[in-house]
Amino acid sequence: MEIPSPKGFLFSTTQAGIKYSNRDDLALVFSKKPAHVAGVFTTNQIKAAPVKICMKRVKGGFAQAIVLNSGNANACTGKKGIEDAIKICETLGEKLNINKEYILPLSTGVIGMPMPMEKIIPALDSLIENLGKSEPINVAQAIMTTDTFPKITFRQIEVSNKIITILGLCKGAGMIAPNMATMLCVILTDAFIESSLVKNCLREAVSDSFNSISVDGDMSTNDTVILLANGEVQNEKIEKKSTVFKKFRENLNELCLELAEMIVKDGEGATKFIKINITGAKTATDAKRVARTIANSLLVKTAFYGADPNWGRIIAAVGYSGVPIKEELIEIYINKICLFKNGIPTLKEDELKESLNQKEIEVLINLNLGKSKANFLTTDLTEDYVRINSAYRT
Amino acid sequence: MEIPSPKGFLFSTTQAGIKYSNRDDLALVFSKKPAHVAGVFTTNQIKAAPVKICMKRVKGGFAQAIVLNSGNANACTGKKGIEDAIKICETLGEKLNINKEYILPLSTGVIGMPMPMEKIIPALDSLIENLGKSEPINVAQAIMTTDTFPKITFRQIEVSNKIITILGLCKGAGMIAPNMATMLCVILTDAFIESSLVKNCLREAVSDSFNSISVDGDMSTNDTVILLANGEVQNEKIEKKSTVFKKFRENLNELCLELAEMIVKDGEGATKFIKINITGAKTATDAKRVARTIANSLLVKTAFYGADPNWGRIIAAVGYSGVPIKEELIEIYINKICLFKNGIPTLKEDELKESLNQKEIEVLINLNLGKSKANFLTTDLTEDYVRINSAYRT
Repeated sequence: MEIPSPKGFLFSTTQAGIKYSNRDDLALVFSKKPAHVAGVFTTNQIKAAPVKICMKRVKGGFAQAIVLNSGNANACTGKKGIEDAIKICETLGEKLNINKEYILPLSTGVIGMPMPMEKIIPALDSLIENLGKSEPINVAQAIMTTDTFPKITFRQIEVSNKIITILGLCKGAGMIAPNMATMLCVILTDAFIESSLVKNCLREAVSDSFNSISVDGDMSTNDTVILLANGEVQNEKIEKKSTVFKKFRENLNELCLELAEMIVKDGEGATKFIKINITGAKTATDAKRVARTIANSLLVKTAFYGADPNWGRIIAAVGYSGVPIKEELIEIYINKICLFKNGIPTLKEDELKESLNQKEIEVLINLNLGKSKANFLTTDLTEDYVRINSAYRT
Repeated sequence: MEIPSPKGFLFSTTQAGIKYSNRDDLALVFSKKPAHVAGVFTTNQIKAAPVKICMKRVKGGFAQAIVLNSGNANACTGKKGIEDAIKICETLGEKLNINKEYILPLSTGVIGMPMPMEKIIPALDSLIENLGKSEPINVAQAIMTTDTFPKITFRQIEVSNKIITILGLCKGAGMIAPNMATMLCVILTDAFIESSLVKNCLREAVSDSFNSISVDGDMSTNDTVILLANGEVQNEKIEKKSTVFKKFRENLNELCLELAEMIVKDGEGATKFIKINITGAKTATDAKRVARTIANSLLVKTAFYGADPNWGRIIAAVGYSGVPIKEELIEIYINKICLFKNGIPTLKEDELKESLNQKEIEVLINLNLGKSKANFLTTDLTEDYVRINSAYRT
C-alpha cells in the first residue's frame, strides 16, 4: 500500500543515539505554512515536559512543525526537562526560520532520565538537512519503542474535484490504557479546516479509538495526539454542519480506529485480539467502565491466552466493575455462543473451545438494563508480555 | 510449630472428588455448641450461592458448623446453586442433629459449573464419621486450589488464668484483590464474646489485612471470612472497652495480617513480596487508592520481577490513580533509597539495583499533602503467573 503524503508537508529523520543505536530515533514533521492545530493529551496527572509544552502551544491554534524522539520520555525531569524541550524547539525554530512557539515536541521512552542534550542538539542539523528526504513511514519507524511494526494509514476525500488527504501515524504497544496510552500520534491533513472545528471532532475520534483500547491498563505520562491541518489543498473552508465536514469527521474516526487497532494488534507479547462489546447499559459511561474492567482483568486475559472458555472470570469482572448490574439479566456471548443467560450457565463451553484458538475473539455482554453501549479492544496476556516488560530497560 | 485448637471445636475432611482426585476437597468445622458468629463477604455484585446464604445466616448471630469445599465455586449457578448449597447444609444438619440454619457453606473453585451433588451428598457420611479425626491444618489443606502451602496460624491471650485461643486458617493465591479476594478464611475462638462486638473488630481486622492485599487485581465472587466464638474457655464475657477486648482486637488484627501476608507470599507465580507504604495523603482512602493502583500496575509488577529500578512506572501509576497529587511534592523511596524528590530524579538507580534482587521489597511514597497513610501488600508478575492462569481449567 502506497501512503500518499498530504500536500505541503515535509519529513525528516535521523540517528541521535538517544538510547538505541543503528536506527533513527529523532524525527521532524514540517508544514510549509503554519497549520491549524488540535491536540488531545494524557489525563495522567504526571505529565511529561513535552506534553506540558504542547498543551500550552496548541491553545494558540497554530503550529508548523513537530519534533519527535524515542528512547527518552522527558518525564519527571523537573524544570530542566522543560528547559531541554524548549531548547530543542528554539534551536529548530532558528534553523528553520519559523516561530519557535509553532514547534511541538513529542517524546516517548523511559521516564525520569534527563534528555541527552549533548546528543540531540548536534543531531538537529542533519534533521534539517534531511528535510524532504524521508517518507512519513520513516517517522513512524523513528518513534517505535517496543513496537514490532510502524503504524501508519490514510484516508482521502474528494471535494469539488480536489482530493483531501488525511494521514495518520502513531506508535504504541505497551503502557496502553484507556484515556490515552504510551502512544504518540500525528495526524496531518492538507484540508482547510479551522482548529476550533477540528478540535471537537478529534476529541470524538480519540474517545472511540485510542481511549477505547487497553493492553495493560497502565496510563502513560506522554500520550499525545496532534492534528495539523495546513489547507494546502486549497479547498473551500470546511464549515460546521456541511456535508464535507460530516465526511471529514467520519474519515477521521475511521483513521483513528484503524490506528488504535494496529496498536492493540501490536500489544506487547499478545497472541490474540479481543473485541469487547457491551450493550444494554444504562449509560455509555457505564458500558465503557464494564468493558474496561473486563479488558484489564489479568484472569480474563490469561484465560484467552490459554483458549480457556472461562466466562466465569468475565462475569466476576462485570461484578466488580462498580457499575450496578443484575446477575439474572446478564447475557454473555463469546464468538456468538451464549454461555450465560437467565442467571444460569448454558454449559456450552465445549462448542466454544475450538473457536478460541482463532486470533480474533469477540465478547458480547448484554446487561439488559438500558440502551447504551461501548466497544473496546484489548489483547490477551502472555509470558512474552512479562518477559518484554521485566527486561525493558536492561 | 504446633497449632493449638481452640476448645470445643472438631474438624473433619474427606475426598469427594469434586474436581481433584487423591486429595481431600470437602471439610467440616463443628462447634460442640452454637457459637457467636460474624462474617465479612466479597463486595463483588456477582456473589456465589454460598455467599448469599452465609450473608443471610450470620445475621441471626449464631452458627455451629462450617462446610467447605474446593474445586467448585457454586457461583453463577442460579436457583439450582442455592438449592444445592441448602441441600448440603440440610443433609448435614440432620446427620449432626443441629439447626440446619446454623450451618454455613463456603465454596472455592471454578465459576459457572453446577455442583456435582452426586459426589458431594454421599461424601457427607464419611465427613461426619471422620469428625474429630482431622486437625485444623487438614481443613486448610482441603480448601487449597492453586495454593502451594496451607495457611494457618493462631494467637493466645491469657485472661484470669484462662487461655483464650484464636485460630485462623485460609486459602488464596490468585484472584486476589482489595475488598476481598478468592479467599476463604475461618477464624475460630473459644472466647466468650458476643457477635455484635466481634463483628466490628472483624471488619477492622479485614480492612487492614485481607482488603489491603492484591495479587492480580481480580475480585472474586466467593470471598468469605467467618469468625465463630463458642465461649468454651468459659471466660468472663468480653465487654467493649475492657482491657481484654483491646487485647483480643489486637491479636485478631495481627492474626488476619499474618494470614494475609501468607496469601501474598503464595501469590501465583510470584517471586517477590512487595510492601507499599503511602504517607502524607489527605485521607486514608486516598492513600489506599494510590497504594492499590501501584500494586495493580502490570508495568510496576513486571519491573520488580526483572529487578529493574524503574520508579518511573510507579510515579506514572500514582498519576493515574485518580487521587489529586502534586508532582513536585512527591517523594519516592525503594528499599529506603530516595529516587525522586523536589520534582526531579536523584539518579540513584545504580545504588538500588542490587537490593532489588532480595525477595522482599519496600516502596515508600510520601505525597506530602496531609497526614494519612496506608500499607498494602502485593507481588511481582511473572511468566509463571501467566502459565498458571492460562491453564487453570485445562
